[in-house]
Formats: sequence, C-alpha cells, structure tokens
Amino acid sequence: MAVVPGANLRYLSGLNVHSTERIAMALFPLGDQPILVVPVLEAPRAEAHLGFEASFYTYTDEQGPDAAVRQAASDLHLEDKVVGVEHLRMRVFELRQLEQHAQGARFVDGEPLMNQLRMVKDAEEIAALRRAARVNEECFRQVASHIKPGVTERELSKIWQKSALDSGKAELSDMPIIVASGPNGASPHTTATSRRLQDGDLVTIDAFLLVDGYYSDITRTYAVGEPKEELKRIYTLVQEANAAGREIVKPGIKAEEVDAAARGVIEQAGYGEYFIHRTGHGMGLEIHEAPNIVAGNDLVLKAGMVFTVEPGIYVPELGGVRIEDDVVVTEDGCESLTSLPRELDGL
Amino acid sequence: MAVVPGANLRYLSGLNVHSTERIAMALFPLGDQPILVVPVLEAPRAEAHLGFEASFYTYTDEQGPDAAVRQAASDLHLEDKVVGVEHLRMRVFELRQLEQHAQGARFVDGEPLMNQLRMVKDAEEIAALRRAARVNEECFRQVASHIKPGVTERELSKIWQKSALDSGKAELSDMPIIVASGPNGASPHTTATSRRLQDGDLVTIDAFLLVDGYYSDITRTYAVGEPKEELKRIYTLVQEANAAGREIVKPGIKAEEVDAAARGVIEQAGYGEYFIHRTGHGMGLEIHEAPNIVAGNDLVLKAGMVFTVEPGIYVPELGGVRIEDDVVVTEDGCESLTSLPRELDGL
Repeated sequence: MAVVPGANLRYLSGLNVHSTERIAMALFPLGDQPILVVPVLEAPRAEAHLGFEASFYTYTDEQGPDAAVRQAASDLHLEDKVVGVEHLRMRVFELRQLEQHAQGARFVDGEPLMNQLRMVKDAEEIAALRRAARVNEECFRQVASHIKPGVTERELSKIWQKSALDSGKAELSDMPIIVASGPNGASPHTTATSRRLQDGDLVTIDAFLLVDGYYSDITRTYAVGEPKEELKRIYTLVQEANAAGREIVKPGIKAEEVDAAARGVIEQAGYGEYFIHRTGHGMGLEIHEAPNIVAGNDLVLKAGMVFTVEPGIYVPELGGVRIEDDVVVTEDGCESLTSLPRELDGL
Repeated sequence: MAVVPGANLRYLSGLNVHSTERIAMALFPLGDQPILVVPVLEAPRAEAHLGFEASFYTYTDEQGPDAAVRQAASDLHLEDKVVGVEHLRMRVFELRQLEQHAQGARFVDGEPLMNQLRMVKDAEEIAALRRAARVNEECFRQVASHIKPGVTERELSKIWQKSALDSGKAELSDMPIIVASGPNGASPHTTATSRRLQDGDLVTIDAFLLVDGYYSDITRTYAVGEPKEELKRIYTLVQEANAAGREIVKPGIKAEEVDAAARGVIEQAGYGEYFIHRTGHGMGLEIHEAPNIVAGNDLVLKAGMVFTVEPGIYVPELGGVRIEDDVVVTEDGCESLTSLPRELDGL
C-alpha cells in the first residue's frame, strides 16, 4: 500500500504532513518495514512524530524525488506486486512516479481497505469526536444569540469563527462554513455572503471544526422573526426526517435504510425532489468519510461507526432547511453526539 | 483540458469549488463551449458564479457521476483527443473516470500550460498580492510585540491567527503557520508546539494568508534577548543571502540564478549543507506555484512574475534562521511586496 499525505497517513502513522508539490509517500509492504519517501526538509519532523520504525529515503529540491522513489520501488520489489493506492487522495503525478519506477506493478484502489480500518471508531476516537461536538455546539450557541434582522451572513460566519478560535481547542478547516439565509438557503452548498438577515427568513448554519484531529459537523436552521407557513412546514418535515433517520440507526441495519427512513418522511409529504443530497456521511479524521448514508449502499452498520444524519429541503427562490446531527452507532441503537435544540425558535 | 476543483479552476472560471469525494470537473474543448460535470447540490452556486457560458451535466448522490461523465466524454468526442489533466491536482479516481469513459483519449500533463497562463500576474492580481502582504505584515507586527521569554510557540501562533481574523480581510489556509523557537528552528517545516521561548533563542515565524484569493507568505526570525554568537552569525548570513537574492532579480535572468545568488552567500561561508531547500517559489492563487526558484530551473524571468526569496540556515540542535520576502519582477528589476525590518532585534 502506498499512502500519500492525508487522513490515511495520519491514521496509520500519526504523521500530519501536508500535500504539496513535493512528493511524500509512505510505502507499507506486507510484513516488512515501511519506507518513507520525503523531502529532506520534512524529514526531521517526520522522524520525530512517526509512530513506528521506518526507513527514510529523502531528496533535496535540487535532486527531485526520482532517485528516491526508484530506490524505494526497487528495494521493495514493487515491479511484481499489487500496490494499493488511494484513489481519492493520490494525485496523477504521484501515480505516474510509481508507474515509472515500478514498471510491472499492478495498481488497485486501496481506499476500501482503509475505510474498513477507519470506519469503526474506538473509545479514544469517539471521545475526541465528542469533544469536537461540544466545542462546535458552544460556537453555535454564540452565533445563535446574534441572529436578528440586519446582521449579515458573513458577520455570523465571523462570530462562529471567533468562537471556535477563542475555545483554544479547535482547528478550523479551510472550507468556509455555510451561512445561508432567505432564498440563499435554497442552495445547500453556498457560502456566507453580505446579505442581511430579514424578518421572516430562515437561516441555515452548517459549521465544522476539528478537535484533537477529529471533526464535528453540525447544521441548524434558525428563524428570524416569523417565517411564512411553507417555510414552517418544510422545517417540521426536516425535523421529522432527522428524527426518523436517527431513530432507525442500530447495528445490523444497512446504511441505505437510514437514508430511506429520513427520505421517506420528506417524499411522503411531496417534497422528495427538493431533498437533493444523501442523508449523511461518515465522519472522523475527515469531514466526509465512510460510511456513505445513501440509497444503494448496503453496508451493514456496526457499533462504533460515526456519521451524520442531515436531511434537508431546498425550494428554489423560497429557501431551505437542513438539520444535521452526528451519531455514533452503539450496541443497541445510536447516540447523538450533538444535542442542540432542533425546534424552530418562535414557532 | 480537464480541470478539477482548485486554483486552476478558480483562475479560469471564478469558481471556488472544494475538492471532495463527489466528482466536479470542467472540460474545456478547443474552440467550443465548456462542460461542467458537478453534483446537483453544487449546481446552483456554480451557475451563479461561473464567468462564462457552459453546459451543466449534473448527477445526484444516488446516481453517482458515471452517466454524467460518460455523456460529457461522448459529447466532446474525447475518445480521439489529447486531454490535458492536472498532474498536481487531479486524483486517481478522477483520472480513472475519464479513462473509463473516454477510451482512446491520450492524457498528458496540463500543468505546464496552466503555469504559463498563471505565472505572469496582471495589475489586478499584483494589487491583491500587495493587499495580502499588507495584512500579513500587520499580523507580524502584532505577534512581534509579544515575543519574550515564557510565551509559548502556540500562543504566538494564536496571536497571529487572531490578528488575521480581526483584520476582517484575510482568509486562513488550512496549513498551520510555523513558529519554531530555539532548537525547533532547526527544522524548516515544523509547527508551533507548547515550547516556551527562552532568553537567547531565535524564533522563526513563517505565516501565510489569503486576501481576495491571493496569498502572502512571509518569514521573519526574531531574537529573544541576546543569542549566541553562532546564531548571530547565521542570521547575518541569511540576511545577506536574502538581499543578494532580491538584488539580482530582473527580467531576462533565469530562475536558477536567483537561487545561486542567495545560495552562494551561504555556501561561501561554509553553511551550504544547512540550507536544505530551494530559495523560493512562485506565489499567487496558491502558496506554492511556478516559477520554482531552484538550481536547474532555466526558466527566464519576466515582468509580472511573483515569487518568494527565502534562504535559510538550519543547524541541528542549535536552531535556524529564515528570512522570506515576496517579490514581483518589474520592468527593470524587482519590487518587494514585503518591507518588514530584516534586522535581528537587539544585535
């Protein structure tokens, strides 16, 4: 298995290396010592933090990585091996390096193997996810207290960011959080704009942060004053869909059954075409990881899996609602790591 | 050319889409209308922000991207085309999708073409880079005023982050900034730890932020009290190397000559083996882009190119020094976008 910088490398080695134009790669042979190919300027930090014994093959900017990759491929006899590579992470230039220096090797997708290792979280990981949820919930409380007509989406986004920074515990993702008010809420993946909140708006906030390397990902939709009847109606539907999704979760059911439970509520009410994404995604070292909570995924849930339940309804021009909780599958059901109120204020 | 989310897509289209497990891709045929393959939940935002006419091929989470990619490949007759793909950005799963649905196409590295387009900045881009430098310099002034024995690297990192956020203009990268004090400074790519600054330390701060989509990347090394003679000596060398690098920059010389000018100062003083990275990197929409300021790069500099000049010396156990400025090549020389003092306090 060849592992590039990112969550899998963090999971396997403890190393938090960033993906750059300088090749860095860990090669894990079956039953033998791993080799790390790293730029010489990353080597001291990598050696200090690595969680296991490995050989380091380094290169300078002047040399470039070719000789180091060639030596590693040759020492591991990759030319007659099946090599797992991360299809979701490895870039073409890394693949081409391996192809060039390990001619004869067969490259297969190593993501499913890594997903299997990472999908069931241990107690330490769940504790970190719990801490992340707690910090994120506190940021939501801060930002919720500032929701009123006249404030801009961007101001709300900054309030959340500052709260996260003030917590002293959170790292922020480079993906901006979502603050979508009024008609902007009809786009599930928008970002905060300079739009001012107006009386009668719904405003959806979807915000994520890391604590000790693990994510929290929460969405709540708030009312500004008294929203229109249809907005209230879709809010109630999403609230029911979120509850239905969480209620069905237990070991032994399939991932797609959670999607069906949440989606059923919305479809029966005639809003199916406006729920335009899966019900949820796994979460851990990454904000999106396995299991995928989507129709067609017959993966059987096990205790320790962690994912979001986040149905939504998005009506063009009118607005949108999403309610997202992070749940962990327990021995006999599920526990929500998030417990912020799910009622629409002022209803 | 097939362009995935990232800086090239931003440059060509104005779209700021994040790279996720959902395929998003812009296909630019020669002389015809581009096609965007995007998940349906990203489509509203993409349509709103796209800077040109394009056809949208969307897919839901339930459908997956296969049919949309197949249709796009077929409508563009990719099967007998040469397709540029971004080797530094495109992931294996995106390449495999194209390979599968455009059998017969030849895939080549499209990065050099994009580098050529992006390398020379126009006035608007240079203005944004200038604004970014100004904001970053103000953050450096804030953090410099807190450097004293007892403060931790992590506290200094937070002070910089807060200043950046308070500016109201900066976006932060997900890469943590570098604060490396005392012996930690011997590793050029470390991150802030809980180490407390001590009298006699040098502390290197390397920090980067975005303003209006463009980067600033600055490094300064500060003294805590009175450092040892050898630390002062390597500081002076790096200061001279930085000046020598900046002085030689003008249109018509080669990128590697800038590296040689800076490196020469350090090599002549016998510290060559401790300057373990290139002298600089291009900068713009990305923190590292072309041109690479490294031995062996015979690219000829042109007015409008922007890169860092950042020689460093890293002596294991003792500590390190790096001084990094961002320069733009002008018609007859170069201008530094950064003007923070380059003298070691207290010398």
